[in-house]
Amino acid sequence: MPSPRANLAIALLHYPVYNKLREVVTTALTNLDLHDIARSSRTFGLERFYIVTPSQDQRALAQRITGHWQTGWGADYNPDRKAALDIVRICGTLDEARTDFQAGFADPVKTVITGAANRPGCISCRDLRQMLGDSEVPYLLLLGTGWGLTESCFDAADHILEPIAGAGSYNHLSVRSAAAIMLDRLKGKQ
Amino acid sequence: MPSPRANLAIALLHYPVYNKLREVVTTALTNLDLHDIARSSRTFGLERFYIVTPSQDQRALAQRITGHWQTGWGADYNPDRKAALDIVRICGTLDEARTDFQAGFADPVKTVITGAANRPGCISCRDLRQMLGDSEVPYLLLLGTGWGLTESCFDAADHILEPIAGAGSYNHLSVRSAAAIMLDRLKGKQ
Repeated sequence: MPSPRANLAIALLHYPVYNKLREVVTTALTNLDLHDIARSSRTFGLERFYIVTPSQDQRALAQRITGHWQTGWGADYNPDRKAALDIVRICGTLDEARTDFQAGFADPVKTVITGAANRPGCISCRDLRQMLGDSEVPYLLLLGTGWGLTESCFDAADHILEPIAGAGSYNHLSVRSAAAIMLDRLKGKQ
Repeated sequence: MPSPRANLAIALLHYPVYNKLREVVTTALTNLDLHDIARSSRTFGLERFYIVTPSQDQRALAQRITGHWQTGWGADYNPDRKAALDIVRICGTLDEARTDFQAGFADPVKTVITGAANRPGCISCRDLRQMLGDSEVPYLLLLGTGWGLTESCFDAADHILEPIAGAGSYNHLSVRSAAAIMLDRLKGKQ
């Protein structure tokens, strides 16, 4: 696949994230994160979905999973799954992901970080939808695993996107569900 | 938990659905369907999420999974997951699910079916959102697994909900992602 032209991409980060005890850890890959977010991304027109983990073993596992559906038995069995996984890129660091995404664009890549908690200075999905439509600036949407991306990630990002609010105080969407809802709000037909 | 008052509930049907060869089959339970759709449903204020399968073994498995997080070790480890799984009910048939949901309401339950293909006479998410807000009629949203619910299910349902449209012709969301997007469109803050 050539350099991306769609100016939104997703990076799913497995490090640096908190665990339940708020220790900074590397989380393990979840097979269905890869499938579900790739399928949602492809459905809403994205051309890159980055799986980011510093663990070489975990990158090898991600490669094996995507390979099964791209060149192995799975490619014939389910061509739609192949089309989704074709947009996946497996990277060791966020910088690697950013460099790949940057290749398709003149403007520098901006990062947009998301989490479950409300923070001051958030932009709304409506704001970001308009920013995506109004320019060719490439936006890389950062999603965390585990108990969320570390404070240092929020400090380093260019924008913070509002969390998806539910009906009440309970708000515990899976990262797969949150990604689907964000993509619909940012790129879905209205 | 007492009878539901939220007039939207979801039923995830594992029968009768098509397989890849368009044969009518019972699909196997997917662990993350249960977790993800329960978490999304709870986040958007639903009080019932029905797992429907005619297989006694599969119902026992579903019970074991939800039980782990409700009364077992998992209940202490992750109370948020317990809160999500508290709304799950495991049923052998759609009629059983409908009877449970009916208990909270005077008006008869209406079924709303969804699938990936466009069909004549669909209602939009916006229509259904308004129907949910305008009355106390209880709506049971039917989601399929495998290659989708059979034609007989579409014939029997009271309403057909439009499929979630992406950016182009590719439209292969997981049922977990489609459920999350529908719940956001039907019940999310706007």
